[in-house]
Amino acid sequence: SGIFEGKSTGTPIAFWVLNEDAKSKDYSNVKDNFRPSHADYTYTQKYGLRDYRGGGRSSARETLVRVVAGEIAKQLLAHKNISFFTAVSSVADVSMENDYDQWQWAEVEKNAVRFPDAEKAKVIEEKIAQAKLAGDSLGGIVSCVVRGVPLGLGEPVFDKLHADLGKAMLSINAVKGFEIGSGFESTRMLGSQHNDAFAMQGEHVRTLSNHSGGIQGGISNGEDIYFRVAFKPVSTLRLAQQTVNTHGENTTLQVEGRHDPCVLPRAVPIVEAMAAMVIVDHYLRNQSVKMDRLW
Amino acid sequence: SGIFEGKSTGTPIAFWVLNEDAKSKDYSNVKDNFRPSHADYTYTQKYGLRDYRGGGRSSARETLVRVVAGEIAKQLLAHKNISFFTAVSSVADVSMENDYDQWQWAEVEKNAVRFPDAEKAKVIEEKIAQAKLAGDSLGGIVSCVVRGVPLGLGEPVFDKLHADLGKAMLSINAVKGFEIGSGFESTRMLGSQHNDAFAMQGEHVRTLSNHSGGIQGGISNGEDIYFRVAFKPVSTLRLAQQTVNTHGENTTLQVEGRHDPCVLPRAVPIVEAMAAMVIVDHYLRNQSVKMDRLW
Amino acid sequence: SGIFEGKSTGTPIAFWVLNEDAKSKDYSNVKDNFRPSHADYTYTQKYGLRDYRGGGRSSARETLVRVVAGEIAKQLLAHKNISFFTAVSSVADVSMENDYDQWQWAEVEKNAVRFPDAEKAKVIEEKIAQAKLAGDSLGGIVSCVVRGVPLGLGEPVFDKLHADLGKAMLSINAVKGFEIGSGFESTRMLGSQHNDAFAMQGEHVRTLSNHSGGIQGGISNGEDIYFRVAFKPVSTLRLAQQTVNTHGENTTLQVEGRHDPCVLPRAVPIVEAMAAMVIVDHYLRNQSVKMDRLW
Amino acid sequence: SGIFEGKSTGTPIAFWVLNEDAKSKDYSNVKDNFRPSHADYTYTQKYGLRDYRGGGRSSARETLVRVVAGEIAKQLLAHKNISFFTAVSSVADVSMENDYDQWQWAEVEKNAVRFPDAEKAKVIEEKIAQAKLAGDSLGGIVSCVVRGVPLGLGEPVFDKLHADLGKAMLSINAVKGFEIGSGFESTRMLGSQHNDAFAMQGEHVRTLSNHSGGIQGGISNGEDIYFRVAFKPVSTLRLAQQTVNTHGENTTLQVEGRHDPCVLPRAVPIVEAMAAMVIVDHYLRNQSVKMDRLW
Repeated sequence: SGIFEGKSTGTPIAFWVLNEDAKSKDYSNVKDNFRPSHADYTYTQKYGLRDYRGGGRSSARETLVRVVAGEIAKQLLAHKNISFFTAVSSVADVSMENDYDQWQWAEVEKNAVRFPDAEKAKVIEEKIAQAKLAGDSLGGIVSCVVRGVPLGLGEPVFDKLHADLGKAMLSINAVKGFEIGSGFESTRMLGSQHNDAFAMQGEHVRTLSNHSGGIQGGISNGEDIYFRVAFKPVSTLRLAQQTVNTHGENTTLQVEGRHDPCVLPRAVPIVEAMAAMVIVDHYLRNQSVKMDRLW
Repeated sequence: SGIFEGKSTGTPIAFWVLNEDAKSKDYSNVKDNFRPSHADYTYTQKYGLRDYRGGGRSSARETLVRVVAGEIAKQLLAHKNISFFTAVSSVADVSMENDYDQWQWAEVEKNAVRFPDAEKAKVIEEKIAQAKLAGDSLGGIVSCVVRGVPLGLGEPVFDKLHADLGKAMLSINAVKGFEIGSGFESTRMLGSQHNDAFAMQGEHVRTLSNHSGGIQGGISNGEDIYFRVAFKPVSTLRLAQQTVNTHGENTTLQVEGRHDPCVLPRAVPIVEAMAAMVIVDHYLRNQSVKMDRLW
Repeated sequence: SGIFEGKSTGTPIAFWVLNEDAKSKDYSNVKDNFRPSHADYTYTQKYGLRDYRGGGRSSARETLVRVVAGEIAKQLLAHKNISFFTAVSSVADVSMENDYDQWQWAEVEKNAVRFPDAEKAKVIEEKIAQAKLAGDSLGGIVSCVVRGVPLGLGEPVFDKLHADLGKAMLSINAVKGFEIGSGFESTRMLGSQHNDAFAMQGEHVRTLSNHSGGIQGGISNGEDIYFRVAFKPVSTLRLAQQTVNTHGENTTLQVEGRHDPCVLPRAVPIVEAMAAMVIVDHYLRNQSVKMDRLW
Repeated sequence: SGIFEGKSTGTPIAFWVLNEDAKSKDYSNVKDNFRPSHADYTYTQKYGLRDYRGGGRSSARETLVRVVAGEIAKQLLAHKNISFFTAVSSVADVSMENDYDQWQWAEVEKNAVRFPDAEKAKVIEEKIAQAKLAGDSLGGIVSCVVRGVPLGLGEPVFDKLHADLGKAMLSINAVKGFEIGSGFESTRMLGSQHNDAFAMQGEHVRTLSNHSGGIQGGISNGEDIYFRVAFKPVSTLRLAQQTVNTHGENTTLQVEGRHDPCVLPRAVPIVEAMAAMVIVDHYLRNQSVKMDRLW
């Protein structure tokens, strides 16, 4: 299925993951009721029926395949010295404020919330524990930095590199916003503050700041690419909620069973995987822009 | 060219716009220097040469065709009672804060900055005048509300409706961020605050709030779609800026000629056009999801 | 995996077929030698390595998934009264000559070679037996008739309906030619002989002949779509053949093991499956050409 | 519009061709009647209206843009020593029979019918003159040979190189058939006759025959690519023809004005242009199959 003697053959790579942690769960109240802010209602309307067992493509289980594909993309990019630094940068009202160069990147895989600050990580863990107890949920932000992307990736009009990154991130469950470089902050800056001055650094053209987030005119400029992704608090709660059922009646829904009050730590590899796929796609696409060594 | 006796024929519609306001401008300092935070440098690296006359596809002139296409999309959607409400909702530090239902929508086309508040519009006009005098530039946010989108538009995985809206917006020059519904705000809310409870309204399933921005699981739910787009302050300034030239030398650039210190008012029709194209695309695409009246 | 309580859910349908008839075969001589007129050599050059075990995507095993997908397409089309008539219409020098309306369609599934003429089927079976004995192989033609395709499927320029049918057929292993309607025969006819005169039949516009093969200007006209697909004699023989090995040396190859001297009977469902997929694609695509009931 | 100082800039190249030979023609009988075997009827059904003036996209005028694009493709390919040899190889019952290596290629641009045999060209010119006198039309075949295509172009499953060539050819007006290499002839050959034996030629792997037409398993093998394209006799005749009008009545149509009894000579550059576009597309696509110098 695409791998022979440890190497990819050019054939699609197929795989199959068995969920050993699946629990036979009572879906009866989900079956007949639409969970608020979930895809239950829109799926039913669009497709005319709904597979209520486990959420299907609207479940975060769907992101597993993204992570596998992203890992392959990262292996390819590693050969080109392109690397990824991804972390949770805020949960509820606890945020990383300063420049990402100052973050404790080594901490990320050391704490349960993948946060680049050991102190704040503890505060967040506590907040998550409280939300769990309350049957409620918390949102937050994932930040991603991509280092070593060569100059020239991205297309100049519709398929700008950050437009494709944005689409990729917005395709992840629960994402509500995306910003590249200075993002929404930029709207309060003057052009003279925001522009990234060019300066020679030895033989290389570099920028003295990086509000552009490594992309100018839709095309990578060789600086770090960095962006932020906003995740809403997940919609599945243990708290009772007002909703309607499939018979068009008002009702109250209380979902039992396992409950994940904050998906942010688990969103980190998904964001990184999607970023890696976008970068490798544009890397390959850029190879087809010009006929190699035409003249 | 696609129109015969006032109706489209199914053939692509071609058009040709002559710029009567073009001024013979001295491009000599732009020719040899890379404008900071502009596409000059990345285009040169990607394509090996650069057409320095007027900016080409990295100029806002490119958006003219988007507005024409968007207008056709809006004509189609008007037949389905889908309508668009778009305005500048912040410039620099002057912002619309409250719910868009409270905005003075009738004001938008009455003031020069397309702002839905007459008082604040005057403040912004003054700020823009100051920025112009200083040779500097301002950023801001455009907000868009789409009313009447039927249930069921959007695809469940990669081509979520808000993912395609996000890509479309991020493909517009100078855009640095996109958020749907509650956006980045949602990251500070509890799930129990954020979830949009369902309730019957006569025969219709409606939501009591709309933090989802009219899209759940990537698919429209019949409520208003609303989103916000962040524009950085434009990079072309009259102020002197540090940069490098095409010979790899540090230099100072001072761009002369006309100067637009705040593009936000002119971004309103572009955002609306791109939104209309995404909605009409998904409207047509949704017609191909099921064979009509299969059984 | 896409089916819930006997109905498709809108999710991709996944399946897994285990080959119970696989034989542990000695691939050693195939491993080091390039089979003439097979994909061995080109795959090795393109991908830098080759999975020699069983042929991979260049094996006819790859067509299994096409047949499954085509069967689903046929179920959809059956609801629209679109049906398929497919048969082997020549093997080596034994051919069906007359109009397909005169063929013994009921015979096709009664004889081993799927030929619409019981007498000729016996002659072909004998020829195939001889070829098997000789370790050689035979080619032939598959003809397909699609009934009930509604007016209006197909796009006017590049994606003409017969262009997409042609591409689909030419993507099947061992296919060397495709012709629609009168095909290569048409090149020897006069326009006055070839044109399909229109005539009213009750309220319907019909053609008095069907040299067009049911498609005019790339778009279906409501008449039978019919086309023919040429299959070369398969390249894997038991006869000794001159070739080169992976070390760049001339050598002789003799492939042992099972040997299929004529694939034509097994090509019938593949041709039909590919046709069904093209028709259902254009059926769905046609639904997205106009906004339904626009005015 | 894409060209600056004689070089392409990476921007789409736009052009505009004014038809100086257009004649104000009376379209009144075409306006109300459907021309047999033309796209009039299917366009009307698909789009709900028809621009009867000059044929629009169903006119051969549409092929002009293909020839311009193909010429650019040929310029790119010429830098890689890929060249095209295209000729009319049959008109009605006059055909080139022997191997294309024996053809008088230098004759092609010397006679009015672009035929690679001076004697037969005269016979064909006479036949065309007779058809013109009779108000009738003739069909024929165009053959194309592409030399110098490197090993490895084409994809292994659906986008086989000959599948894309076939689709491109079948998208040209009036084309009814396509065959690659031995084509329909192959169906009457034995595998042992048809297989192209490999043999070393110095350091290069070559084939001793080329029934494959330069493509094996969908991927170019470095030998000449050759194929044949069948054109029906054009449908527009001066002879009276039975048809129906737009009111659903039987009628007789007699088209006046200029009449082209045989389009084959003018089809030669179109076939060559489409072939060049397919080859350059696959050339560029092949550059994106592997990350350049991955390890």
